[in-house]
Amino acid sequence: MREVMVIGAGITPFGELWESSLRDLGIQAGLEAIRDAGITSSDIDALFVGNMAAGRLIEQTHIGALIADFAGLAGRNLPTVTIEGADASGAAAFHHAYLSVASGLHECVVVGGAEKMTDLPDADVTEIMSTALDQQWESFFGATLFSMYAMIARRHMHEFGTTREQLAQVAVKNHAHGALNPQAQFRRPIKLESVLGAPRVADPLGMLDCAPISDGAAAVVLCSADRARKLPGQRVRIAASAQAGDTLSLGRRRSLTAFDASRVAMEKALRLAGRSRKEIDLAEVHDVTTISEILAVEDLGFVKKGEGGRAAESGMTSLSGQLPVNTSGGLKARGHPLGATGIAQIIELWAQLTGKAGRRQVNDARVGLAHNVGGAGATAFVHILEAA
Amino acid sequence: MREVMVIGAGITPFGELWESSLRDLGIQAGLEAIRDAGITSSDIDALFVGNMAAGRLIEQTHIGALIADFAGLAGRNLPTVTIEGADASGAAAFHHAYLSVASGLHECVVVGGAEKMTDLPDADVTEIMSTALDQQWESFFGATLFSMYAMIARRHMHEFGTTREQLAQVAVKNHAHGALNPQAQFRRPIKLESVLGAPRVADPLGMLDCAPISDGAAAVVLCSADRARKLPGQRVRIAASAQAGDTLSLGRRRSLTAFDASRVAMEKALRLAGRSRKEIDLAEVHDVTTISEILAVEDLGFVKKGEGGRAAESGMTSLSGQLPVNTSGGLKARGHPLGATGIAQIIELWAQLTGKAGRRQVNDARVGLAHNVGGAGATAFVHILEAA
Repeated sequence: MREVMVIGAGITPFGELWESSLRDLGIQAGLEAIRDAGITSSDIDALFVGNMAAGRLIEQTHIGALIADFAGLAGRNLPTVTIEGADASGAAAFHHAYLSVASGLHECVVVGGAEKMTDLPDADVTEIMSTALDQQWESFFGATLFSMYAMIARRHMHEFGTTREQLAQVAVKNHAHGALNPQAQFRRPIKLESVLGAPRVADPLGMLDCAPISDGAAAVVLCSADRARKLPGQRVRIAASAQAGDTLSLGRRRSLTAFDASRVAMEKALRLAGRSRKEIDLAEVHDVTTISEILAVEDLGFVKKGEGGRAAESGMTSLSGQLPVNTSGGLKARGHPLGATGIAQIIELWAQLTGKAGRRQVNDARVGLAHNVGGAGATAFVHILEAA
Repeated sequence: MREVMVIGAGITPFGELWESSLRDLGIQAGLEAIRDAGITSSDIDALFVGNMAAGRLIEQTHIGALIADFAGLAGRNLPTVTIEGADASGAAAFHHAYLSVASGLHECVVVGGAEKMTDLPDADVTEIMSTALDQQWESFFGATLFSMYAMIARRHMHEFGTTREQLAQVAVKNHAHGALNPQAQFRRPIKLESVLGAPRVADPLGMLDCAPISDGAAAVVLCSADRARKLPGQRVRIAASAQAGDTLSLGRRRSLTAFDASRVAMEKALRLAGRSRKEIDLAEVHDVTTISEILAVEDLGFVKKGEGGRAAESGMTSLSGQLPVNTSGGLKARGHPLGATGIAQIIELWAQLTGKAGRRQVNDARVGLAHNVGGAGATAFVHILEAA
């Protein structure tokens, strides 16, 4: 398969965007990505959209066609598709868009993610997010995505001595990063005590341990390397696009405290990229809860199993640490519009690897990793991007 | 890109399957496809699932992971994905599964489609199917998928003199075909008068002009040609996998009586396959309504625009006609479990091209075409399969 580059990015602010519809957000991100790439929409061969739940959230399926239509791409009869892998839908769309260019089918495509979550009451959104679990054996009985992660957190504390404070440190760190990201939903630092004292969502996780409900969209343009080299703009190389899966039900897993899908996707990605973990300069990981980031740092092999809590506590994963994790603010502070998240992670790598990350710039960032998880770990993607 | 073969197929009966859940149906079709291919699940590299609306129909997203889990594939941490393009989700999943093998990423994959529609009242299902239209400018105001097709039918009658009887002939023909298909939802011939006298859905379309609400699943195994040739079983070559799009809103189209997405996808497919229309021995087309088949036969270029009604009336598209269309019974009689339909069409070609279509076998069938449409024509896929 041939080499593929990211050549442009567009992202809306994430947050409660009551004045914008999903199509508004999708078009804004998509057209910004096309402009950023220094091309025009006539250069685009196809549109890929990651979306988890618009069918219920806004009673709209066929989102790919919708956005192509209102972005003015429909006149050219472009192929469009919507790809879903729970809240890893963004990375799933990126993976298949990458494949369409790597295979030679397309020369240049837009891949975006979008979700509009704030048009419904929070309780409905919680229920909709929980459709990523096993409906028949988990969510039907009242389990929610956050209650599942709460169980995982409890078990992690029991097995490895992870503390409530270590969980909270993840949120403190990611809010500190988000404060440096003008596109983040939350742009204020928070204190450890605030996390510890916040209302409970599912014990031990509180409000500030959980990613918020967000509207937003993000898009990038992918292009064959040959074509990208002829364009005047910046570019970043996709060194690996890897996916792995696991049982949907937590109860059928080997372990409650490790996501094998993350581990296997990481092994594949390192092999594809021909890289070792030490060469990764920064990582965007799936911190839908604070325990999720701890699991991710462990399952991706950056620290030993059980030491993810200490990684946050010690500052290892801070902007100035050995491996900056979630410099964008992560799902926690940048926001988590389900289908958009995987693409937003890629855009953070794009910003860092092209030296455009402003106050949160990682020095000499050459290799970045994005890790997007669906639900409670049944789907995981790892993408490795490199400065080109 | 390398050559790809279909090497096995599995399909559940379509109908009101109250005793089976979506996961039951998906597993049944998938495992049957694997057995039919003469391989084992350890040969499978990934699972692709076409599904339109399980998030609302049964409150379950992450269907790919669900089916992999309960089919016993999760232990191998296989990648899974759900792909949506309204009721062309099945063909969309097939297209991307094909690409994953053609590109060399995977050697052997299962691609299935599934939908469980009968767990909700019909009115809810009508609303859910209508999410494939433009929610903000069409379905919000009460438009449904069938009312849109009714407008198209009225306009077609006005522009081309298509008659109510010609519409009805499509249903009569497809029920006659369905009567020969043991897997079809409706296995009884119907009379012209029954179609004309059936209760109205949206004038001029009546109950027997519209595809039913169905549960069902269908799956095929795709494999690289090199690998397929080493296996003992039958195989069918994928000669073309093509997609095109159009505006989501009908109001923004060039014409109400032609689907440009179908026309453009057909042109691409013929080019990819190096075939002319005359070489196509049979076609499965998207007859979600009777007018839909008339449009399809025209837009695919088998007859001139405006002559699709006469094609049904004259017997040209009957089993014994010049171009047998919808020998399976089509969406109308075989049933239309949204995400499963595109795969069911492929399975009809598989049966015909391997000589296993029993009483509905087309003599000397060598080249077959499948045409799957999303919503009211914003997405169209054309696949061409050939006996190998």
